[in-house]
Order: sequence, then structure tokens, then C-alpha cells
Amino acid sequence: MNRQTDPQPNGASDFASTPVGDDVRTDHQSLRRRIREALGRDRAGMAVGLLRRMLAADQGILLQRVSRAERGRLVALIPRRELSDILDEAPTPAAATIVEELPPERAADLLDDVDSHTVADILQELPNERADAIVAELERPQDVVPLLQYPPDTAGGMMMTDYPRVRHDVTAGNALDVLRLFGEDAEGFGWVCVLNDRRRLVGAVSITQLALATPARSVREITEEHGHRLVSVSPVTDQEEVHRIMARYSFSIVPVVDDEQRVLGVIRAEEAMYVGEEEATEDMLRIASAPGERVFGPLHLSVRHRLPWLVLNLGTVLVAAAVISLFESTIAAIAMLAVFLPVVAGQGGIAGTQTVTLVVRGMAVGEVPAPTGLRLLGRELLLGLLHGMALAALAGALGWLWKGSPGLGIALAIAMVGNLLVAALTGAGVPLLLRRLGIDPAVSSAVFVTTFTDVLGFLIFLAAGAFFVTWLG
Amino acid sequence: MNRQTDPQPNGASDFASTPVGDDVRTDHQSLRRRIREALGRDRAGMAVGLLRRMLAADQGILLQRVSRAERGRLVALIPRRELSDILDEAPTPAAATIVEELPPERAADLLDDVDSHTVADILQELPNERADAIVAELERPQDVVPLLQYPPDTAGGMMMTDYPRVRHDVTAGNALDVLRLFGEDAEGFGWVCVLNDRRRLVGAVSITQLALATPARSVREITEEHGHRLVSVSPVTDQEEVHRIMARYSFSIVPVVDDEQRVLGVIRAEEAMYVGEEEATEDMLRIASAPGERVFGPLHLSVRHRLPWLVLNLGTVLVAAAVISLFESTIAAIAMLAVFLPVVAGQGGIAGTQTVTLVVRGMAVGEVPAPTGLRLLGRELLLGLLHGMALAALAGALGWLWKGSPGLGIALAIAMVGNLLVAALTGAGVPLLLRRLGIDPAVSSAVFVTTFTDVLGFLIFLAAGAFFVTWLG
Repeated sequence: MNRQTDPQPNGASDFASTPVGDDVRTDHQSLRRRIREALGRDRAGMAVGLLRRMLAADQGILLQRVSRAERGRLVALIPRRELSDILDEAPTPAAATIVEELPPERAADLLDDVDSHTVADILQELPNERADAIVAELERPQDVVPLLQYPPDTAGGMMMTDYPRVRHDVTAGNALDVLRLFGEDAEGFGWVCVLNDRRRLVGAVSITQLALATPARSVREITEEHGHRLVSVSPVTDQEEVHRIMARYSFSIVPVVDDEQRVLGVIRAEEAMYVGEEEATEDMLRIASAPGERVFGPLHLSVRHRLPWLVLNLGTVLVAAAVISLFESTIAAIAMLAVFLPVVAGQGGIAGTQTVTLVVRGMAVGEVPAPTGLRLLGRELLLGLLHGMALAALAGALGWLWKGSPGLGIALAIAMVGNLLVAALTGAGVPLLLRRLGIDPAVSSAVFVTTFTDVLGFLIFLAAGAFFVTWLG
Repeated sequence: MNRQTDPQPNGASDFASTPVGDDVRTDHQSLRRRIREALGRDRAGMAVGLLRRMLAADQGILLQRVSRAERGRLVALIPRRELSDILDEAPTPAAATIVEELPPERAADLLDDVDSHTVADILQELPNERADAIVAELERPQDVVPLLQYPPDTAGGMMMTDYPRVRHDVTAGNALDVLRLFGEDAEGFGWVCVLNDRRRLVGAVSITQLALATPARSVREITEEHGHRLVSVSPVTDQEEVHRIMARYSFSIVPVVDDEQRVLGVIRAEEAMYVGEEEATEDMLRIASAPGERVFGPLHLSVRHRLPWLVLNLGTVLVAAAVISLFESTIAAIAMLAVFLPVVAGQGGIAGTQTVTLVVRGMAVGEVPAPTGLRLLGRELLLGLLHGMALAALAGALGWLWKGSPGLGIALAIAMVGNLLVAALTGAGVPLLLRRLGIDPAVSSAVFVTTFTDVLGFLIFLAAGAFFVTWLG
């Protein structure tokens, strides 16, 4: 939740109700232009005034996009409290860009007001010496240091350590006093963890329940009456799993516990929102052999992400070329066979891509538990057979009519059925096999699948072509 | 949040801390097996006892998977309150399956305790007469009927109409009394909407702030002191946009307002969790020409989803075949040209897939605002040139060495650069153009892009091959 206690510079109410989508972006673009104009005319104060019309997350993104000099001038004029909010709300790379250019004491002072898990994420983006210098200046380094051991994409890296919690043996009135100490940090939490005297989780009550209960009632009673089952995770649990649990059960918090069920922290739904999208993007780019790529990232990183896969693919298509090479003399005699090579490769490629995408995605969202693997393979083979027969009729007829060669039609028909079966077998089989071997099934599955469909498709088509065209004309 | 006020049948504490991932699934599988065994031995009571060990969402999924007769026996034995929880927490198709088989009065009685937006989602899955019969029996149809006008994938379809709200002119003490009336419905909400006397949104305060404030303080003062800017949406806003706003700003609630800023409802973060994943899946399958497919859906639907794209693709590869057909006599004379057709098609295809996936995904997550389109196209063309030159060197050398033909090497090198540029131009250009035309850029972009890379790639390669091989050997 974005906090702006200062009066709004544009005179709007605290609650800015804004249209969404392209309108927001257009509006932001005009704001951004005016901010840069103001900076160009050396009116930094006016630029900051314009900047403060945006939500904190957007302010952070804008600060990341302007030049280092412009950023320095803006940051110097933003009130401390608001700058903390920006670091809290902005995407981690934007916050890290801002923090990196500040003296460590100033950075630490600002980060003292930021959620500990966000601080840990930001520090993990900085060079080690810089991060260490900032940690040394933090008011409560003990909140942050334990988090630095967990990668940002694990439950440990996502959790907040300063979450609201009460002991089960206090009264509702006492519990509210305890929550008062959390102050604004408890805001936005609908739920409070209830711990026993050994810091172990015994339940969770909603803050509403505590506030509405008779002050003298014990938290234990309230928890028992309005008890909740939650699923807790370990700090090394992958963020994808955390997201899946939250999405499946509509939980608003997921506690992170150690081996002895002691609560280490809590992950809130709004902090896990981006995970489904982020993981889906990762998978999608991995399938497409462009893992880790960004639309407007540095050019040399794009080359490093994509070129190795293009070179690997060159290796795999050379295998397909070698297959054709075996039939070079056949093609010299029956050149029309070459005409239909892209038909064979294209149909196998699309069918394989359909299957592999469906299977990899199904695995990612948990729809393909291990014991259903064979059933899935059988289903895809059946579909491959059905689609193959339909395409065999079409492509066979077309080949025959176009080139007047019944042998070509038969060869194409056989190749369609054969290649669609290969597409199904590899499209489902490769990801299932990769998962069994403990390898991410998304890893460039498309390259492997099209290699198989090319190689085996050409082999089937050219062998059948050599035989049937010679025999039937 | 999943509520289970009855004692847990397995004697565990209310707060079940469970391991995650495959363990959960394995555990569920053994539970599922034991439940079916108990039903088989006519021990429905025991089956229900086992069922109640699962979280409500999982109970719903299991009830959907068993036979109709088994479901009937289980549902008859589950206590009313727990069955309501199952309908509330289970995926909509599972809840609809259960509701459809109950008499309308019983269904309405159960749905009276379910969130209004969930009720609307369930009713929208049922045949119209059945839905109408249930609505007629609901205790508060006025909460549900307005929601039925919004598709489930819009803000209107996602919002809850029974969200906690208070007027700005009451005291904190009064506000807590009002919230008391919401009872458990207010649970899990960290925030309360503050409305003025014309139901217009003036702000939002955290329930914690209300609970911790002096009871005599006015809500208006508390809101002003701890004011929050939120972004509100209209009921027709797409769920993807709602999710993007929540993920970008880490909001835990997004209010839905009408044209006059009157609040119609509120969307909670945990209800929007699944959207990022769902939309990503849709896009991924669309790119792969398998839109709307499900891993284990009915077979005839799979055929209907995939076969039309395979047939369309047959049409597009025939264009590529026609290009080769133009060069049939060249191939009859220089058969080794046919050997390298898959190299040309393969490299163009992978490069095009990399670009198109990156661009379509970048658009979906809002990283490619309209004015950056040309910059993106230029960036991809530059990358295409760089990658094309690298591959030209490799493939050219290989072609020359393998077949001993410098002319073939030159033709392959030219084809690599040309086809990588075509891949960049179409991989970025096709989605940008589709978006400009108001068409979803994900729609089978891969098919269009590979058509261009095949057709133009073959044209460049065969023309260059005919010329250089004849000239240089």
C-alpha cells in the first residue's frame, strides 16, 4: 500500500481515482516530458512537484529512467519520508539504481523505513562492498541480514520478518496493544499470527476479530473459535510454489517456518502477485530459446541470451540436412520431392509446438502430476493420429493433384501421419523426460522437438517418396 | 481464507502446517484412494472423515473428480457450513458441478454464505433456468444479480459487493460497530473503504488504524492523517489490467467505481492472484496455435482447438512449397541445394520465435508502450543483423567445407543474414501491426512469422544458390 501523508501537490483528494491502461501511460508520458523540460530549464523544484503527482512505484521507475545527473538533482529534493516510500514500492532494479548512488549512511537512513524483505532484495542487487557498507549503517541490521542468505525468488527472500504476531496466552486487549507497537507496519495485514511460548505457530486470527472481541477474552479462545488452517512453507521453497499455494487457496498470508515450525516470517498476497506473471514469462522465453531476455535490455545481453541457442539450433538442423543429403541422388532424379520438404517440416513443427507448449505449461501450473504422464502421452499420440490422418487426406490429395503423381500423394500422406506421431511423442515425451531427470522442462523444448520432427519427418517422407514415386509415378 | 470451525478429524491443530509441492499431491493421492475405497465398501461416513482432512479448495476438486453417485453420497454427509466453505474456496467449475446437482433451495441456502462474486461466477457456469431458479431462492439476490451482468474476467465479475466500508463522518468507535455487522465477511480485509454521504470514495483506512485510534476520533481525521492513494477501476476493466495494477503497486485492494466515482465493489489481492498465471497461459497457447486448450480436456475440444491451425499452417507452408517449386529445375541440377533448405527454414524459424515471443510477452506485461514500437523494431533488426552475420560465417564455412562448393557457402551466408533480418522484421512487426489493428498480438503469431521466414528465406537462398553455385561451383 502506498503511503503519502503529505498533502497532494495537485490538490486532489488523498484517494486519487485514476483511469487505467493506456490513459495512465499517456498521462505519465506527458508528466515525464514536463519533468524533463523542467529539469532542462533548471527548475528542479517544479520537476519534483510534478514527480509527486505519480504513485510512488511510478516515481521510482521514472527516477531509474532519467540520467544519473537528473536523478541526483531530483532525489536531493524529495522529502526523506517520500523517498523511503519510493524505495519501498518501486521495482527492485529501480530502487537499487537510486540507492547505489547515495552515500551509505543516507541510503541506510532511508532503508530503515522500508520493509526488511525489500531491503534485502535491493541489497542483493548491489555490489557486495556497497551492500556491506549500507548494512553496517542500518538501525536494525538483524532484520535484514538473515534474509540475505535466501535468493530473492525463494520464500525466504519474499518474506517479511516484521509481521504482526501475538502470543496465544494474552488477552485481545493486550494483543491490540502489541499490534499498536507494530504501528504502520501492521497496516494492510488482515491477519495476525498466533504463536505459543516457543515461537511456534498455533494459528492465525484476523485483526478484525481481535478488534471486535471483548478485550478480556484470551487470544487462544478467539483463535480456537475462529481457527484457520493455512499451509506454511520453508524458507527455501521456490516462489512459484508459494504463488501456487496462494492462488489455489486464496490465502492472504503464507507463513514461512523453520524445521521446528518456528515462524521466520510471513509472505503477503500482494507481494506474491507478480510471481505468476514473472514465472510465466520465464517459461515462455525458455520454450522459445530466449531465456532471460528483456525487451529493452542491453544489446550485448540479448546477443548472449539468444545467439548460443541459434548456434545450437544450427547444429540440430544440420542433422536434418544430413538426412536429406542421404537422399541427394533421389532428389536429383525426383526434384519435386524437395518442394514438399517444408510441408513435412512445417506441419511437424507446429504440431510439436502445440503439444510441447501445452505440456510444459500444464506442468508449470500443476495440472500434470507425475503419475498422469503416461496418460498424457497416450492422449497426445491419439490426437496426433487423428490430426495426422486428417492432414494426410488433405496434403496427399494436394500433392497428387498439384504434381500429378499418386506416389507423391501417398508419400506425403504417410509422412503426415508419421510426423504428427513423432510430434506428439516428442512434444509430450521430451518435457516429461526432462522433468524426470530433474531438468526444467521448459528449457528450449521447442528446439529439441523440432529437431526430432525435422529429422524423422524427412526420413519418412524421402524414403516413402523414393519408393512410391518410383513405383507408382 | 479457509474456515474450518469444526474440530479437525485428524486431531491436528487448527493450523495445519503442511509440506508443499509433490508431497502435498502424493498425500492427496493416497487420501483420494482411501476415500474411494471407503465409498466402495459403503462406508460413506468414513469417506467424509477422510475428505475433511483436506483444505476446502482441495475437497471441492476431489468432489468434482469422483463420479456423480459418489459425489451425491459425500455431499449429503458434509455439514452445511463446511459445504458452503467448499463452494467458496473451490475452483469455479468444481463448485458449479456440485451446485448443479442440488435442489435449487438447498443450493441457494448454501450459497447464502458464499462471497457474492463467487456466487455470480458459479451461477454463470450453470444453464440459465437452473441459475434463475437458484437466484429466486437466495436470501439477498440483490447482492448477486448486479454481478451477473459482468463477465467473470472483468473487474465487475471479480469484485465483492459485501466489502467493509464506513462513512467518513462517523467516529472510529462507530466505525468498528459498523464493521462488527459485517462480521466474518470483514475478515481478511486489511483495509476499509471510506465513503462520503453520496457513496463516493474519499479514501481508505486500515482496520488496524481504526482499532488503534481513540474511539471518539472521526474517521475523516484518521483518513486524512493516514491517507492512501489507490487506483480504482471501472467494472468493465479487463482482469489483466486489474492484476497489472495490483502487481505494479502492491495494492491489497482495488475499488471498482462507476462513472460518478460511486463504489460498486472491491477486488482483493488474493482473488486476483490467479489472473497473471491464467492470462499468461492463454497468451502462451495462442502463440503456439493451441488457444483455449487444456491438458486433460475433452478430446473433441482439443481437435477443434488445434486442427484448424494445422490446416491453416498447411496453407501457409504450401506457399513456401510453391517458392521451391519455382526452382525445381535448379534443384534437379544442383540437388545439394535441397539439403540446406531445413537449415534456412530452421534458423529463420527459431530467430523469429525468439523475437515474436519476447515482443508479445513484453506487450502483455506492459513493457512495450505504443510509442516505443519503432525503437523495438530497430533494436530487433540490429540484433538480426548481428546474429545473421555470426551465423553466416558459421553456416557459410560449413556449407563450403561439407560440399566443397564456395558458391553454396556464399548462398548460405547470404540466406542467413537475409532470413534473420526477415525474422526480426516480422517477429517484431507482425505483433506491433496486429496491436495497431486492435487484434490480440498473441494470436498464432508464430505461424505468421514462420511463414514469412520460410517463404522469403527459401527465395533468397535458392536465388543466391542458383547464381553463385553456377558461377563459382
